[in-house]
Amino acid sequence: MKRIVASAKRKFPLSGLAKGISRNGVLALAFLIPFLASGQEISQAAPVVSPELAANNSVTFRISAPQAAEVLLTGNWMPTAPAPEGGFAQEMTPLEKGQDGIWTVTVPTMEPELYAYAFMVDGVRTLDPANKNIVRDGRFSTASVLYVPGEASDLYWAKTGPKGSVNQVWYESPTLGLTRRMFVYTPPGYAESNENFPVLYLLHGGGGDEEAWSTLGAAQNILDNLINAGQAEPMLVVMTNGNPDQAAAFTVSPKLDTEPQGAGGMANMLFEKSLVNDVIPYIEANYQVKTGKENRALTGLSMGGLQTMNTTFENPGMFDYIGVMSMGFADLSRFGIEIDHSKREQQIKALAAAEPQLYWIACGKDDFLYESVVTMREKLDELDFDYVYRESPGGHTWTNWRIYLSEFAPMLFK
Amino acid sequence: MKRIVASAKRKFPLSGLAKGISRNGVLALAFLIPFLASGQEISQAAPVVSPELAANNSVTFRISAPQAAEVLLTGNWMPTAPAPEGGFAQEMTPLEKGQDGIWTVTVPTMEPELYAYAFMVDGVRTLDPANKNIVRDGRFSTASVLYVPGEASDLYWAKTGPKGSVNQVWYESPTLGLTRRMFVYTPPGYAESNENFPVLYLLHGGGGDEEAWSTLGAAQNILDNLINAGQAEPMLVVMTNGNPDQAAAFTVSPKLDTEPQGAGGMANMLFEKSLVNDVIPYIEANYQVKTGKENRALTGLSMGGLQTMNTTFENPGMFDYIGVMSMGFADLSRFGIEIDHSKREQQIKALAAAEPQLYWIACGKDDFLYESVVTMREKLDELDFDYVYRESPGGHTWTNWRIYLSEFAPMLFK
Repeated sequence: MKRIVASAKRKFPLSGLAKGISRNGVLALAFLIPFLASGQEISQAAPVVSPELAANNSVTFRISAPQAAEVLLTGNWMPTAPAPEGGFAQEMTPLEKGQDGIWTVTVPTMEPELYAYAFMVDGVRTLDPANKNIVRDGRFSTASVLYVPGEASDLYWAKTGPKGSVNQVWYESPTLGLTRRMFVYTPPGYAESNENFPVLYLLHGGGGDEEAWSTLGAAQNILDNLINAGQAEPMLVVMTNGNPDQAAAFTVSPKLDTEPQGAGGMANMLFEKSLVNDVIPYIEANYQVKTGKENRALTGLSMGGLQTMNTTFENPGMFDYIGVMSMGFADLSRFGIEIDHSKREQQIKALAAAEPQLYWIACGKDDFLYESVVTMREKLDELDFDYVYRESPGGHTWTNWRIYLSEFAPMLFK
Repeated sequence: MKRIVASAKRKFPLSGLAKGISRNGVLALAFLIPFLASGQEISQAAPVVSPELAANNSVTFRISAPQAAEVLLTGNWMPTAPAPEGGFAQEMTPLEKGQDGIWTVTVPTMEPELYAYAFMVDGVRTLDPANKNIVRDGRFSTASVLYVPGEASDLYWAKTGPKGSVNQVWYESPTLGLTRRMFVYTPPGYAESNENFPVLYLLHGGGGDEEAWSTLGAAQNILDNLINAGQAEPMLVVMTNGNPDQAAAFTVSPKLDTEPQGAGGMANMLFEKSLVNDVIPYIEANYQVKTGKENRALTGLSMGGLQTMNTTFENPGMFDYIGVMSMGFADLSRFGIEIDHSKREQQIKALAAAEPQLYWIACGKDDFLYESVVTMREKLDELDFDYVYRESPGGHTWTNWRIYLSEFAPMLFK
C-alpha cells in the first residue's frame, strides 16, 4: 500500500521570513504560527500590550491607530444613559494619542469582574487587536474579554482542584424536527463515580445560543469552584439552545435549522415542549442522573426566564427548584411577542399545589424589565405564592447572571 | 426557608428603549439582548450585511467607516508576497467608499473553503463588525470567519445525520505537574455502543492550544462526515494542548500554568513524554477504546508534526499510523529551538523495525518549512524507510491541515 509521490525541489527564502520576524520583535516561535491573515502582525512594529492590569487593579488599554482622529473605549462596566436619538447608549471613555500613534487610557481600580469591551476607532467598533481573548454574544455582539481577579470574580476562573467536563452533545428533538446541540456539564468525579446526580437545566437569553452559559456565563468554572468548596452539591448542568428554529449556534450549522420563527419563536412554547419531551428524557436515559422533581432544577435569564416560567407553569410537578432571572409578567406585544398571561392565575395555583422547594426570582434594579418583575410579584403575592426575591444592583447583564447562578446553585438539592 | 426581600418600586423608561430599537431597524427581539457593550449597535443606523455570499459564490464585504481614508480587506485566500521591510506580508484588497460611508468590495467566485479574514481600517486591524462568527488562532491572531459551501468544503460543516460529541476533559499530568485540559471527540453512536474504538491523537501547531483543531480545524465535522459516509472508521480523536507549560488555553486558566518555557518548550520533549505517560493511559482507562499500536494513530501540524516525529521515534512500537504535517528535519536553532537530530538515523532504523502500517508526510509546495521536508525525505530514502508523501498546493495553512486530516483519517485502522 505504500507509495512515494515524487516532487520537484523548490527553493524558498526561509531565511528572509525568519529575519523579517526577528527584526520586528515578534516572539521567536511566531515562525510556526498558522497563517491566519496574520501577515500584518509580522510586518508591524513592536507589539502593543493591552489590556495591562496593574497590581492595584487599574487597567491600561492601548491601541495603535496613528491615523485616527478619535478613539473611545466602551466596556460593559460603563453606565448606559439615555441617547439623544432615543433608546440608551453606553457611555464611552476617550483614549489619548501618543507621539508613536498609540492611543492609551488607564481606568483606575476596576472591580474584580469578567468584563467585555471594545474600542470605537473613528466610529468603527473594533475589538482590541492586542487581546486574543474574545467572546461572541449570540447573534448580536462580539467583544474583547478582560478578567480582573479578586473575591467578587473568583468563582469565574478555573482553579486548581478537581474539574468537571463540558460535553457538546447532539440529540434528537422530534418536537422541533431537529437534531440539536446542547452543552452538558458533568461534575468533578462524574466519570469515576457509580452514583447518580441531580440536574440543573440552565437557559440562555434572546439572541443567545447553547454556547452562552459556558462562555459568557463561565458556568463550568462557577460550578467546579462551588462544588470543590462544598458550597454546591455535585450536579449536572444542561445548557440547551433555546431558539426553537435552531439546531445549534449559527457558527456550527445554519443549514440544519428549520424555517426562522423570528421573535415569535419566543412565545410559541415549542422550546418548552422540546425541553420536557426531548431534552429531559435524553439526559435521564444517557447520563448517571437521579430522576423525579426533587432532582431537577430549572433556571434561565430573560427569554430563558420566560421559558422557565412557561415550562414550570405547564408542568408543575416536574421541577423542585425554579429560578427566574431578569424576567417577569411582561407585555412584549410591541415586539411581536404575544404571551398568554391569561392562564397565569390558574397556573400559579397549580404550581403552588405542587409545592416546589424553591421559587427564586432575581432581577437588577436597573433592568429594563424591572416593572414586569414587580407585576409578577404583585400577582404572586395576591395569590399567596411562596417565592424568594433577590434584587441586585445593575441591569440586564451577564455580570448579574453570573452572580445569580453563583447564588442559585448552592440552594439546590439540599 | 422561604423569604421575601422587599424592594422599592422604581420607574424605568422601557418604552424609550423600545422605541429607540425599533426605529433603528434592529430585530424586535434585540430588546432581550444581554448588554455586552452593545449600546452602539442599538443607536447605529440600519445594519450592514457582511459578508454576503451570492449564488455564484462571489462574496461582498462591507463595513461602515464614514471617517476612514482607506479600508483594505485581508483574507487567508490572498497570496503572501515578500514585504519591502523584510519577511512576507499578505496582499490586501482595497474597498470602495460609498456616499453612505459604507465601504464595499466584491470578491468574484470564491472557491469553497472555510476562510478567515479581517479589515484594515486606516491601518487598524478590525474584525468584521457585521459578522459575529469569529475565531481565535491560539495566542497570535483573531479573525472573522466565512464559509463558502461547495464540494471542497463540504466536510467542514455539520450536516444532518448522526453526530459525535466533543468533550472538554481535564486530566492529571504528573509529567508536567499540571492538571490539563484536552478535547476528546467520541464518534456517532459511542454513547449507545458497547464496542471499543481506536484512537487518533491530533496535535496543533506552535502558538495554538487544545481548541485549535475543533475551531479552525473543524475536526469534529470532518470526522462526523467521513464516518457517516463510511469513508473513515469510527474512532476517538484526542486533541491535546501541546504547550508543556500550559494547563489549558490562556482564555481559561493563565493561573494554572507553570513557568513559561518559551520557544524552548517545543524541543524539551516534555509534551511528548506527557502524551505517552499521562494522556494515552488516561484515555485508555476512561474511554471505550482499543489498545495496542494497531489501534493508535498520531498526527500533528508544524510544532505538532515535530512532536509526532519525536514521540514515534522515541516510542517506535506505540503507533501504527503516523502523520507528519508541514514539518521536516528543520534546523530551528535561530529561533532558540534546539532539536537533537543526531539520533535520527538510529531512530529511523528502530521505527522501521517496528513496521508501522503507515508513515505519512504531507507538506504544501509553498510551505516555508518545505526544505526541511525535502531533507527529511532524503534521509528516509537513504535508509530505505517506507513512507507516503503527499504534496499539496499552498503553504503553512489551516486550509492544508483540514485537507490533510480529511485524507489521513480515512487511511486509519483498516
